[in-house]
Amino acid sequence: MPAHKIALVGAGRMGALHAANAASSARVDLVAIADHDMARAQQLGLETGAIARNYEQILADPDVSAVIVASSTSSHLENVIAAVRAGKAVFCEKPLSLDADTLAAALPDLETPGARIFVAFNRRFDPHLRELKRRFSAGDVGSAETLHIINHDPATPDLGFIPRSGGLFKDFTIHDFDTAAWLLDDGFVELFAAGACLIDPKIGELGDIDSAKLVLKSSRGVLCVISNSRRTGYGYDQWVELFGSNGALRADNVPSNEVRCLGEGGTGSAPFPYSFAERYAEAYRAELNHFADVLDGNASPATGPRDSLRALRLADAAERSFRQGAPVALEPSGGL
Amino acid sequence: MPAHKIALVGAGRMGALHAANAASSARVDLVAIADHDMARAQQLGLETGAIARNYEQILADPDVSAVIVASSTSSHLENVIAAVRAGKAVFCEKPLSLDADTLAAALPDLETPGARIFVAFNRRFDPHLRELKRRFSAGDVGSAETLHIINHDPATPDLGFIPRSGGLFKDFTIHDFDTAAWLLDDGFVELFAAGACLIDPKIGELGDIDSAKLVLKSSRGVLCVISNSRRTGYGYDQWVELFGSNGALRADNVPSNEVRCLGEGGTGSAPFPYSFAERYAEAYRAELNHFADVLDGNASPATGPRDSLRALRLADAAERSFRQGAPVALEPSGGL
Amino acid sequence: MPAHKIALVGAGRMGALHAANAASSARVDLVAIADHDMARAQQLGLETGAIARNYEQILADPDVSAVIVASSTSSHLENVIAAVRAGKAVFCEKPLSLDADTLAAALPDLETPGARIFVAFNRRFDPHLRELKRRFSAGDVGSAETLHIINHDPATPDLGFIPRSGGLFKDFTIHDFDTAAWLLDDGFVELFAAGACLIDPKIGELGDIDSAKLVLKSSRGVLCVISNSRRTGYGYDQWVELFGSNGALRADNVPSNEVRCLGEGGTGSAPFPYSFAERYAEAYRAELNHFADVLDGNASPATGPRDSLRALRLADAAERSFRQGAPVALEPSGGL
Amino acid sequence: MPAHKIALVGAGRMGALHAANAASSARVDLVAIADHDMARAQQLGLETGAIARNYEQILADPDVSAVIVASSTSSHLENVIAAVRAGKAVFCEKPLSLDADTLAAALPDLETPGARIFVAFNRRFDPHLRELKRRFSAGDVGSAETLHIINHDPATPDLGFIPRSGGLFKDFTIHDFDTAAWLLDDGFVELFAAGACLIDPKIGELGDIDSAKLVLKSSRGVLCVISNSRRTGYGYDQWVELFGSNGALRADNVPSNEVRCLGEGGTGSAPFPYSFAERYAEAYRAELNHFADVLDGNASPATGPRDSLRALRLADAAERSFRQGAPVALEPSGGL
Repeated sequence: MPAHKIALVGAGRMGALHAANAASSARVDLVAIADHDMARAQQLGLETGAIARNYEQILADPDVSAVIVASSTSSHLENVIAAVRAGKAVFCEKPLSLDADTLAAALPDLETPGARIFVAFNRRFDPHLRELKRRFSAGDVGSAETLHIINHDPATPDLGFIPRSGGLFKDFTIHDFDTAAWLLDDGFVELFAAGACLIDPKIGELGDIDSAKLVLKSSRGVLCVISNSRRTGYGYDQWVELFGSNGALRADNVPSNEVRCLGEGGTGSAPFPYSFAERYAEAYRAELNHFADVLDGNASPATGPRDSLRALRLADAAERSFRQGAPVALEPSGGL
Repeated sequence: MPAHKIALVGAGRMGALHAANAASSARVDLVAIADHDMARAQQLGLETGAIARNYEQILADPDVSAVIVASSTSSHLENVIAAVRAGKAVFCEKPLSLDADTLAAALPDLETPGARIFVAFNRRFDPHLRELKRRFSAGDVGSAETLHIINHDPATPDLGFIPRSGGLFKDFTIHDFDTAAWLLDDGFVELFAAGACLIDPKIGELGDIDSAKLVLKSSRGVLCVISNSRRTGYGYDQWVELFGSNGALRADNVPSNEVRCLGEGGTGSAPFPYSFAERYAEAYRAELNHFADVLDGNASPATGPRDSLRALRLADAAERSFRQGAPVALEPSGGL
Repeated sequence: MPAHKIALVGAGRMGALHAANAASSARVDLVAIADHDMARAQQLGLETGAIARNYEQILADPDVSAVIVASSTSSHLENVIAAVRAGKAVFCEKPLSLDADTLAAALPDLETPGARIFVAFNRRFDPHLRELKRRFSAGDVGSAETLHIINHDPATPDLGFIPRSGGLFKDFTIHDFDTAAWLLDDGFVELFAAGACLIDPKIGELGDIDSAKLVLKSSRGVLCVISNSRRTGYGYDQWVELFGSNGALRADNVPSNEVRCLGEGGTGSAPFPYSFAERYAEAYRAELNHFADVLDGNASPATGPRDSLRALRLADAAERSFRQGAPVALEPSGGL
Repeated sequence: MPAHKIALVGAGRMGALHAANAASSARVDLVAIADHDMARAQQLGLETGAIARNYEQILADPDVSAVIVASSTSSHLENVIAAVRAGKAVFCEKPLSLDADTLAAALPDLETPGARIFVAFNRRFDPHLRELKRRFSAGDVGSAETLHIINHDPATPDLGFIPRSGGLFKDFTIHDFDTAAWLLDDGFVELFAAGACLIDPKIGELGDIDSAKLVLKSSRGVLCVISNSRRTGYGYDQWVELFGSNGALRADNVPSNEVRCLGEGGTGSAPFPYSFAERYAEAYRAELNHFADVLDGNASPATGPRDSLRALRLADAAERSFRQGAPVALEPSGGL
């Protein structure tokens, strides 16, 4: 099958990552890159063999069959809708939007006949989480009883990002909401969120928190705990444990390498990765492969606008619970 | 220093464990055992070289300097007060009482001048938890930010025990409340408890739960998660992770042995212990050594009535939070 | 820098692996494939975007700057010399030859001015071994005292391969000889090899062995143990431990994934990979990157004909030791 | 069953360890201690509730039913024979003798009717090795093909001990010879030993070595590797891996505790124990329990003079192989 010609909008950090994966894939051919900063688009184009063009030209080009949207979050929805209107398949970095009502209102524009929108929740493509889900689905530990999701980042983001991040729950916990729903194949009926600014007081001054512990109850009664931290100091500490009626499955942390040093003070193992590009390298490649499957007509997008909306509504609920200091009841369907 | 002559009241499961440790200790000499079932006391006496006597006789014997109280929970407080009145030092299995108000009312009887009451919270003597606390206190991970306590038992207790257990929070989570307070050297200002009966519906029919997830906030702002399960199916899954400003410390599970089998399906490590006597063998021996230190006059009891009351008040708060479906505010001092 | 146009000779298992890596690399452009079986070359060409041509045409094409030699072992040397004569840089699967004297005699043809021959010992590019070497070189464990190399394959090769393999030492242990020399940056003065056919008697009937334990002494006095097995039944069990004056470094096995299952019989970790393409995926990509560095003029081949000869001479010595049942003395330089 | 009255000869390091275990055992009653240094015997007696007496008096005392021989190695055989003549059961620290011919000549004195001599090879009582043997015997990995024994001590012994140690093979490797024979339930037909003084040149000046790598072949064809080091710097690195036709069993190292510290430089696990009393605490207690079983008449000694002689003959063969630089052939029966 010949490679699909695709374009990229957004030549920032995530755009560069997806461009590099596209450039080394035999299944897609990255032909064009748009960015409001044309020089940045050109530079990334040089590195990946693509041409810098503006987004309107790209959408008008009949040879381009798909678009990767990795622009700033506030532009996602607009970029995606434009691409859908132009008949392009879409690979969109999460989230589609930071505002649930806006996203809900846009559903008719996103779910037009033939629209193919893949919202890239990278955790779903992590090989370790996938193996956990496979074994759980195979019945290896019986029925689910409780679920723990530990999601701790290596280091706090640039403070400049905090105000436009949407807050901890929408920017960060949103991964865990999607992971929990995906792993359990279930919705949630109750949520309690405790949060605090324990790491960097400047985050608190900006009205956000950097640490949270959440307890959720799923429709089928599974109790879930989510633990969030913006900074470990020791790399990506992100793992999942699912306790079932017949045992437990743990998708553990991934060390940088398997070298250990045995010395007077004990045995030292390698640190966890500090870079998301390293920690989730396989997940990002698998995302692109999945998108190529969609383009081939062999798969439907694993996650679409409604998954994004569901996770966003959970994030809103978490914010509400945290602000009110009380659990909140949820519609298990996520209001969908 | 000659061995201290001590006696035991309660020849059940815990009494037998402490009797065996006493019998193999050079620091104490187990001379007498009381039990409402005299035959049981005699049998345990045969195994440990002690004489079966009634509790009144034991307390009246000036040669006996201390008593281990391992009778049924409902008798603990009465047995302890009688021993204190008789001038004996006391080693009491937790809890002193299942009712916080009763215990609070009894404090004057328990805290008479010269009274020495050690309430045996075994986790405090687990060498792994002690090492975690030692390293935390030494500053190895900076200041505490969050704490996770996983406390999952191998198997549900006999259903007959459930009604007299005091309920999950008082019987089981109480260990975690004490562990959290001890590790952090801090009290708690807020608690939210979610619980469910997920393992055995018969426990639910008896009005109790078998699974719980709690979120606590300490006076100094540390966020704590406690996870409880009455049954793993794979042994004692009980560990603690303390996240600090400069790293994390984990006191991990203890395997039964270090043998691994490498086979077609992967690498199999040994199961965790299924028996508390095996899992906490060193902790129980260390408890007795600590008590011998108290008898030698070289230590004060590491935990006393007020620790027991504090944990009990947290258990009451958990029950309230669970019943009300809302967080409850706490006095950090535990009302002490 | 524009991608280097390269060709491949040999469209078998290793050829296909290198072709796939080349096809997904932005640094090289695989343009042609030769194989005595033209249909096979065409098929692989279809999958990787290359054209099937005969080897003479390829060597005559001035646009082709380099050749990957992955033909059958017996053709390696001839293919390499032809490529060198044609002025092409060469990436050659190990070994250059199965006969040390033949290889020694060919050195003048291989070491002509400007010749660039990279003999691909994949272990040198394994990220875990490289990290071990980096840390050893950084002095993390002091000076080397002893070295253990465990090299156990998942499954015996096809019996048809055994007669043309060169025997266990030349086909299999040769990796370990190169690894030991590379890690220690040292030659060897003595070698003792014990071997046996313990796994499959048919291998013995073919005059070969399937298991071996070797002890070597290096010029600087380091004692090395090499353990070989043709079949574990549980995947690639290949790791290295280097004991130094100040601790030890271990490059441990690499599990297929980080999922563990906790069940009644214990904790099950994922198996080690069964496929060399999976176990050494990063190493093969790194080999190609190194070769691209050579083509860029930024590196000299990490391993060349003399490394291949040195390893081959050690393999000959091992065969001799095994046949004679006695240690053999070696020239530390490997006779180079 | 009443406790057996036993005595100890030798109040040094090993004597003190056995005395402490005896003092805390309900199955034996340590009543007397002999030592050429009477003050040392008295001191240990104070600590363990035993009386210092000379060895002749002890042997003449009909109340004493057994003797633990932990005197200096050169006195072992004489002390044991005297005890056997006095009708006492004997628990003897390994080795019975450093000279194989002397020991062989003494067999008639040691194997008189009714003689009960337990030679304490502590490794056989290590719970991890026992579990490995149990699983191997249960067929968990099929038939044995190869065996690796890693035996590295934390630190070199006092240099004063070296001349009277009997040399590395008799003092240290002897454990591994016994372990190999016990695990495989097999004798050996060939042995090659390479050794060197790599750690402390003073050991070499005393005519001994501090590092060795041995390859043995068992009667049934199992290839064994033994790795010895007098000093790791990081504690007891002593483990065993048995490779079978259907998988492998590893009895891994035992960490001091299960606490890990996750920090910037990686994950640090606890060191291995530095003290043999800690590393083999359970083994030493199990030895004493086994001896109590022997005294009860419920067991025969697990290891006796012939096991000691077999290991000693292997040590002699290793010395010969090392000195000659060549493998040596062995009688599989160990000459017994």
